[in-house]
Amino acid sequence: MREASLPIGVFDSGIGGLTVLKELQRSFPGEHLIYVGDLARSPYGSKSAETIRHYAGQITRYLLSRQVKLIVVACNTASAAAGATVRQLAAPVPVLEVVELGAEAALDAVGGGGRIGILATSTTVESGIYSDKIRALSSSKGIPVPRIMQKACPLFVPLVEEGIWEGDLADQIARHYLEEMSVFQPEAVILGCTHYPLLKGAIAKSLPAGTLLIESAPAVVRAAGKILDKSGMRSLKTKDALTEYYVSDSVEAFSRHAGRILDRAVDLVHHVDLDACEGREE
Amino acid sequence: MREASLPIGVFDSGIGGLTVLKELQRSFPGEHLIYVGDLARSPYGSKSAETIRHYAGQITRYLLSRQVKLIVVACNTASAAAGATVRQLAAPVPVLEVVELGAEAALDAVGGGGRIGILATSTTVESGIYSDKIRALSSSKGIPVPRIMQKACPLFVPLVEEGIWEGDLADQIARHYLEEMSVFQPEAVILGCTHYPLLKGAIAKSLPAGTLLIESAPAVVRAAGKILDKSGMRSLKTKDALTEYYVSDSVEAFSRHAGRILDRAVDLVHHVDLDACEGREE
Repeated sequence: MREASLPIGVFDSGIGGLTVLKELQRSFPGEHLIYVGDLARSPYGSKSAETIRHYAGQITRYLLSRQVKLIVVACNTASAAAGATVRQLAAPVPVLEVVELGAEAALDAVGGGGRIGILATSTTVESGIYSDKIRALSSSKGIPVPRIMQKACPLFVPLVEEGIWEGDLADQIARHYLEEMSVFQPEAVILGCTHYPLLKGAIAKSLPAGTLLIESAPAVVRAAGKILDKSGMRSLKTKDALTEYYVSDSVEAFSRHAGRILDRAVDLVHHVDLDACEGREE
Repeated sequence: MREASLPIGVFDSGIGGLTVLKELQRSFPGEHLIYVGDLARSPYGSKSAETIRHYAGQITRYLLSRQVKLIVVACNTASAAAGATVRQLAAPVPVLEVVELGAEAALDAVGGGGRIGILATSTTVESGIYSDKIRALSSSKGIPVPRIMQKACPLFVPLVEEGIWEGDLADQIARHYLEEMSVFQPEAVILGCTHYPLLKGAIAKSLPAGTLLIESAPAVVRAAGKILDKSGMRSLKTKDALTEYYVSDSVEAFSRHAGRILDRAVDLVHHVDLDACEGREE
């Protein structure tokens, strides 16, 4: 029923998920991609899990109406709060989540018994999902559970959305959040929000030299490649595939930021009415 | 038809409007107040005017369903983007807007030909509404138009929402935005977003000593008093009236912040489904 020429759906609350989209574009230039950014209701990071499940449900329904062959939840908050909802609605379409893949990458990097830091939004931190996944993965691999420190960094998203990705203010805000984390001396720190890779420079400066910063995008690309190959769903095209962008708020504001993150022109930006994609979440 | 015992409706995208609500509670202890905070979709400041009109329309419809006798738009962004929409939907119920009242207070303070600074969200700044109002008021009063400098301060709202109202980081972020404004040496600066009064200390430190900071809350109280008296709609109670709070997201998170801003217990917090208040905006 599903075909290799069908698109891959990627979504985020706003522009953060573009850091994941960029890697997908680079690695799969023949795949038709549909990106949904819920700018009319962003950011998700300080909203309740219930509200986020509602929003993620609408977006999932929209992507399914576009007959996607794979859904990538490119937003850690949505992944933490609504991962199960998305999977349930999407089945049998496979779903990749940044949280799961990021946790795995961190554990692979640190090995058993090390120290892992997690930087994320308030909602993701409160959900405890990264710690849960790391613990579960450690026990399934039979290795000692790493020590974990979490830190919510609510100003990082508005900082990125304002286009301040480096410089004094970015450094100061990073220092404000990372003092305690720096004392903890983690071997690896998960950038547990898809906006955070854009602040990588400032974050690295506030942590001990040599701290490994874990982004989820490369892990998403690897996992997507495996799923497509295994199911025979990889596109037959090898280049020049379209990326379409759908945003729930102003098309202009999105295009400006997106071009800067993706390092390429962003043409096909459309408005989408997500409230029209209503249904029932559990 | 309308009665003195009916409630006054006050709304904002989130918690910022509570700085206005607080003054209303203090000045009108006998008035039944209904506050709506649209936390599920806050902040408004970086969203498009069209989207904000949609949201403000839903909130207005909700307040009208509660038979309010007066509506206070306690959000500058909503006032800038959707003031006309709210007035149109609400008529004949009177509507007070923070933008109009703030512009008037600044002009009264500075007189003709002075220098006025405006700090606001991106959407409010882009609308140019403060400059327009100040120009129109000057010409109707027959006084020279003041020189005006505007500055969007997008990090102020998330800073307040995170509860960081003072200290090093607040000072640094204020300095980041106000360097140019400080050189401009305004006699008065409009705090053109209802969150900003909570950062008054940090803002004052970054401006020349003696700069007058204009808040809209006292002007709202004066204007509300006039309307109620003129229409004979002032409540017969003189104390102990209820304030009810309705939020579109988690009740718990709101109660925590609101108690701190209002300096009193916040009991009657309910969830409201604003998407159910659908209709047609122009």
